[in-house]
Amino acid sequence: MTTQDRRLIYMDHAATTPVRPEVLEAMLPFFTEAYGNPSSIHSLGRRASVALTTARRTIAEILGAHPSEIIFTSCGTESDNAAVRGIALARREATGANRIVTTPVEHKAVLYTAQDLRDHFGFELTLVPVDGEGRVDPADVAAALGDGQDVAVVSVMYANNEVGTIQPIAEIGALCRERGIPFHTDAVQAAGKLPLRVDELQVDALSCSAHKFYGPKGVGFLYLRGGTPCLPFITGGSHENGRRAGTENVPYIVGMAKALALAEAERPQETERLQVLRDQLIGGILEAVDGARLTGSRRERICSHASFVIQGVEAEGVLIGLDLAGVAASSGSACTSASHRPSHVLEAMGVPPRDAVGGLRLTLGHSNTPEDVAYVLEQLPQIVARIRSSTPLPI
Amino acid sequence: MTTQDRRLIYMDHAATTPVRPEVLEAMLPFFTEAYGNPSSIHSLGRRASVALTTARRTIAEILGAHPSEIIFTSCGTESDNAAVRGIALARREATGANRIVTTPVEHKAVLYTAQDLRDHFGFELTLVPVDGEGRVDPADVAAALGDGQDVAVVSVMYANNEVGTIQPIAEIGALCRERGIPFHTDAVQAAGKLPLRVDELQVDALSCSAHKFYGPKGVGFLYLRGGTPCLPFITGGSHENGRRAGTENVPYIVGMAKALALAEAERPQETERLQVLRDQLIGGILEAVDGARLTGSRRERICSHASFVIQGVEAEGVLIGLDLAGVAASSGSACTSASHRPSHVLEAMGVPPRDAVGGLRLTLGHSNTPEDVAYVLEQLPQIVARIRSSTPLPI
Repeated sequence: MTTQDRRLIYMDHAATTPVRPEVLEAMLPFFTEAYGNPSSIHSLGRRASVALTTARRTIAEILGAHPSEIIFTSCGTESDNAAVRGIALARREATGANRIVTTPVEHKAVLYTAQDLRDHFGFELTLVPVDGEGRVDPADVAAALGDGQDVAVVSVMYANNEVGTIQPIAEIGALCRERGIPFHTDAVQAAGKLPLRVDELQVDALSCSAHKFYGPKGVGFLYLRGGTPCLPFITGGSHENGRRAGTENVPYIVGMAKALALAEAERPQETERLQVLRDQLIGGILEAVDGARLTGSRRERICSHASFVIQGVEAEGVLIGLDLAGVAASSGSACTSASHRPSHVLEAMGVPPRDAVGGLRLTLGHSNTPEDVAYVLEQLPQIVARIRSSTPLPI
Repeated sequence: MTTQDRRLIYMDHAATTPVRPEVLEAMLPFFTEAYGNPSSIHSLGRRASVALTTARRTIAEILGAHPSEIIFTSCGTESDNAAVRGIALARREATGANRIVTTPVEHKAVLYTAQDLRDHFGFELTLVPVDGEGRVDPADVAAALGDGQDVAVVSVMYANNEVGTIQPIAEIGALCRERGIPFHTDAVQAAGKLPLRVDELQVDALSCSAHKFYGPKGVGFLYLRGGTPCLPFITGGSHENGRRAGTENVPYIVGMAKALALAEAERPQETERLQVLRDQLIGGILEAVDGARLTGSRRERICSHASFVIQGVEAEGVLIGLDLAGVAASSGSACTSASHRPSHVLEAMGVPPRDAVGGLRLTLGHSNTPEDVAYVLEQLPQIVARIRSSTPLPI
């Protein structure tokens, strides 16, 4: 089979997903027909407002939360900023607590935000180390917290975007709760793949982004437990109960709720299906590609996520080779692929820089089939071999 | 003609507008087909990235700016926050300047943000007064600035959302430039109706929101002149050249550029058409409704904007009456209509609270015709009369 015969094989679902047809359909009326501003009191405004209420209730139910605890945002990154900044600043004002505790494998939306709070707003920053699989040990969190009196906020991601490792969120949550410290988790990669019940997770704040679960890019939400101190991040009008100003993105919010409801309903079966494909992919690559090593945890791993370092090759060459063969993949985080710097996640896991340049991430989703996996397993070893032998790529 | 025979007459275009069909059409491929993350280096990512580049160039050309000076955001409110906060904080770090100068008639996205910077971040705040038409006198700005050494940022809106008054932006910009102070303008209500050439306006930062010019809700942009000091507001990945983290909302950004290009192309004719309708509306209401008074400037006024206070009635009753008659209108700002507090804009203009409760805003747009204006002129006096005579509204 030539590459021309094939549709594109998309294995970059951790970067983004297409909008599901059902989601697009749910969104469409709100662009041109039910286009009112939800703050307007006329009938068009009320229709938009009702749609927001329904979406908020849908999402709250999935989280086991109260609708008033859901704040709509423009993306996962904004949710992370709103939670980490908002809670840190509010807690410092109220208690004087001045230290932020997080990990070195966080998405940059959390890590760079914590650094920004250190560099520009006078906070202290503690990074709890991770093991070789990128996993945080709750005992290390407990040690970092101490009695917790000086800690304003703790933020640990639910599942890692680069290596797929799932963190022991509930255990960390319990440690924070004992000490009365608000606990935030970046659940951007987890949503649709892992349970989001906030009481079981023992979290006070949780960030999600719709475009990771077949909703649109440019909308997310922040769960913020009632009573959690948090200064508003975007100030202005009284939208979202005074907690996030700006005219609500009604079509996308409706779409996000629809997408999350569908993802939750399908989660048991889809998780199982993807795990099988993922394990074939991991097993096949480790067997067929010399010098390939799995990154992240083998056991505590998102169902859709396969990531590797491949010794002696640079990620960019592999990705270009895959792209020419009709496979969309990633070196690690899409957000940093433009920067050409070694992954801060692999570095924190102790992967040597000479190996970290060979990072490869294949993330599965709805569209992927066993045939896709077989095709990648056929193509990838050839691509790696070509690069290693310095044969120019066919154009 | 009964109200049942009529389509809805939408006269709340300052609150939001429907998405134009051409804009929706331009957006659609990016939901389900060209859905790549623009940061991904595979072909799907590159296609999304090219779309962003094209949109950025389109908007930059309309502003007479360089594409690198356009930062995509999630809304006008975010743009305002990013500019006022980012510039104020960066300037204070660099120069020690600690004062924010703005006006009491700003949109809350600026006014509340400036107050938040005062209340939580140690800035001083100077509000330059406005006259009875809501207009700022550049001489008063000059007096407020003094030599400007201690001023971190100045923010004055281009056109007011509640009363339609246009501010002397270029004159204020010149005063700021003489003193080396960055000058931001909230151009959310101006875009599509007034020129946006940033050099002629003498602004260093300018905020816009797509849903005010027939683009979607949930996307905006910030023009930030090259070299203007500004801390990133949303931190994380290196999107937008490190100035605004978060996966880009590709469909909406494409739609926003299309909407602004269409609005600019049609601006001369549409402005003229709307001015005629607006003047009929203003003249008719002042003549037919006892105790109605125009708010804002008669001369320096957006083409689409008619606003009044009507003595002896509460806005809510008028709006409900209009809604029942099939007319969507507003009391002032949509963003604050839920709050039931008197308008801070009317208060700053010296309108007594007992009159301010009778605020009515009718804002025109594409869909409005001379027949719409005639219908409102027929209905409104009856509605006001009914309220005054305390006759219950027909259900």
